[in-house]
Amino acid sequence: MNAISPSHRVVIIGAGFGGLEAARRLGHQAVDVTVIDRSNHHVFQPLLYQVAGAALDISQIAWPIRHVLHRFKNVTTLMAEVNGVDAAGKTVQLTDGTRIPYDSLVIATGSTHAYFGHDEWAQFAPGLKTLGDALSIRQHLLTVFEQAEREPDPVKRQQLQTFVVIGAGATGVELACTIAELAREEMPGDFRRLDTRKARVIVVEAASRVLANFPESLASYVQQTMEQLGVSVLLNCPVTECHADGVVCKDRRIEAGAVFWAAGVRASPAALWLNAPADKAGRVKVQRDLTVPAQPDVFVIGDTALVEQENGKPVPGLAPAAKQQGRYVAEVIKARLRKRPAPGPFHYRNYGNLSTVGKSTAVVDFGRVKLRGRLAWVIWALAHIYFLIGVRNRLLVALNWLWLYMKGERAARIIISRKS
Amino acid sequence: MNAISPSHRVVIIGAGFGGLEAARRLGHQAVDVTVIDRSNHHVFQPLLYQVAGAALDISQIAWPIRHVLHRFKNVTTLMAEVNGVDAAGKTVQLTDGTRIPYDSLVIATGSTHAYFGHDEWAQFAPGLKTLGDALSIRQHLLTVFEQAEREPDPVKRQQLQTFVVIGAGATGVELACTIAELAREEMPGDFRRLDTRKARVIVVEAASRVLANFPESLASYVQQTMEQLGVSVLLNCPVTECHADGVVCKDRRIEAGAVFWAAGVRASPAALWLNAPADKAGRVKVQRDLTVPAQPDVFVIGDTALVEQENGKPVPGLAPAAKQQGRYVAEVIKARLRKRPAPGPFHYRNYGNLSTVGKSTAVVDFGRVKLRGRLAWVIWALAHIYFLIGVRNRLLVALNWLWLYMKGERAARIIISRKS
Repeated sequence: MNAISPSHRVVIIGAGFGGLEAARRLGHQAVDVTVIDRSNHHVFQPLLYQVAGAALDISQIAWPIRHVLHRFKNVTTLMAEVNGVDAAGKTVQLTDGTRIPYDSLVIATGSTHAYFGHDEWAQFAPGLKTLGDALSIRQHLLTVFEQAEREPDPVKRQQLQTFVVIGAGATGVELACTIAELAREEMPGDFRRLDTRKARVIVVEAASRVLANFPESLASYVQQTMEQLGVSVLLNCPVTECHADGVVCKDRRIEAGAVFWAAGVRASPAALWLNAPADKAGRVKVQRDLTVPAQPDVFVIGDTALVEQENGKPVPGLAPAAKQQGRYVAEVIKARLRKRPAPGPFHYRNYGNLSTVGKSTAVVDFGRVKLRGRLAWVIWALAHIYFLIGVRNRLLVALNWLWLYMKGERAARIIISRKS
Repeated sequence: MNAISPSHRVVIIGAGFGGLEAARRLGHQAVDVTVIDRSNHHVFQPLLYQVAGAALDISQIAWPIRHVLHRFKNVTTLMAEVNGVDAAGKTVQLTDGTRIPYDSLVIATGSTHAYFGHDEWAQFAPGLKTLGDALSIRQHLLTVFEQAEREPDPVKRQQLQTFVVIGAGATGVELACTIAELAREEMPGDFRRLDTRKARVIVVEAASRVLANFPESLASYVQQTMEQLGVSVLLNCPVTECHADGVVCKDRRIEAGAVFWAAGVRASPAALWLNAPADKAGRVKVQRDLTVPAQPDVFVIGDTALVEQENGKPVPGLAPAAKQQGRYVAEVIKARLRKRPAPGPFHYRNYGNLSTVGKSTAVVDFGRVKLRGRLAWVIWALAHIYFLIGVRNRLLVALNWLWLYMKGERAARIIISRKS
């Protein structure tokens, strides 16, 4: 195939969009690849909110990593947690004490929720980053409606079916809309005491507008559509307190049955492992070839990396950006091994930015072309079905959506506990 | 509709096959029905082992109870846990202290695992009765293979991929076969160090044969088929110790990566609530009209009841029997309210007994006619698809199975934890 040693060891930490793409591009190559992830599955994060909203089931947006990579016999998958990197000794350290040696290291460990110095809020306002998070939110959401149905006091009942979503970025908007539609369109006939059409969903945002990374014109359309779906939007309203039964923002107390967090993210601790320069969100400041300064064998990609574009702006923390970085890093490693010239600096190609507002509306920003409404939703749906890995899941996700449309019925309204 | 008072209150505890059937048969009648269940979903228990084996996803065999019953406006669903019945005051007591008054009470609370006086075994050998159980078993099973892939010592690796199933009834046989097929047919290409074709599945049974409630001829066929699938069967082998890393039976120690329990059940504590006579498995000894002696307004059905047939044998603890009892009780209540003569004593109609042995073989006992092999499997599959509630799930379950056949790929191999 080529002349370089097959014993060059590439370790990839994290099997999100970036890590998985790097692994695939290094598949069937004369390198020895090890993919380490603390979970056994790759998750299609852009649809996590639909799992939280009980519209999709877990296996429709998650796949066993080792199965996704099974045809690449030079790729080994390990489910394990990393807690350090020894850059001098060129090993990755697992929590069980094992050390995995590498020649090239790709860190693609993503990001997690950031509570802006209030980590104690995590217990009251769960965020949405993993499948476990999505199921926790689903259980919480569905359980609150069950409590409300049992509640004899109408005031308490209404308070229970009030939901606060903190943050009006894409995740906050999508989560809020899916909760509103669940309550107002799909649940009403199922309850006797409770009128779920009166459920309140309130999005609380510190900034002066929704969807900060979309153009203003689309953002104001999104806000109008949210309000039509029954979602209230409170802008310029930073949260100062967060409790089990509500939040306080700008001296206003909002009582709620459940509070969800979609306000901020923090990079994984890769900068600490590497002792590398980072921004205040913890993202490693990588060079234009995505390597860490003074550590040419260590690449950081995706949400863990701060990559500057030609225009000085950072590459956004989106799935397509992470995938492009994964592909780029694989090319760099292959070029080095073949002793060919390295590709030029990483260049992010922006193919557009999409976000849904409920189950039949979306906004799409292609730069010059901006779309909104039903046509944008169709583009969003086609793009997502296309990018879901595997024919089977495309088919099942499409079927589930079609069902939702035809019947207004969510398949996955299941509360799981040890007892149930 | 009829002349009786619409205020007659029927409370049904438990929304398994019996309780749900009683509620449906009382739907659109002039009675006020309340269905209480501690979970929010009805689960199709006969396919739970496929969720445990990662072949089916949860929403394919579970449905929100309140949605299943939503068209019956006289039926209210409450998700709540019952901890007592006040037969004199005619109320059901919930754990939150609420009391629900009834005129007629139907107890259909099912059964749980019985560890024969060794409740401490529950932590090492989880059983399979609920969706939560099925997901726990799935996580445990998949995690053990991940541990084995990381394990450098080949002896320990082989020990990890050894699975013990205690009990060779239908659940034990089905669970053992699905584990063997997962390891031997679907997983091999996905691992690098681990050869999952060498996984061992051992069924340990105290009695002298498998499937005690099937005819001997079918049972011996089942045992042969299990052995062809790679499942070892140890008969006359009562378990005397149970640990995290294996079991002891008849002075023989079997080291294992995981142990699962399918050996015995115990009825729910309804007999204690009612202070009613019960057998040693805790089943309430009901009369021929399924009422509790001296409590004519209290019915007990399904796995919680001991119902004698004309031939002196008890009605078996199977889904069709519970459904027939639910229907019967609804008829008795309707007859009483309409002041018509009560139907005759409950009569169990045995339409046959089915069990699978892996994904292409089954046994069917229709009494005189006994079938085994592929044809029996087709009958089993058709019967299960037919009885699954709702067109949508029939379609999705059928698609999933078809996929499994065509691709040998299980959709639901997802380990969920708070971290993942």
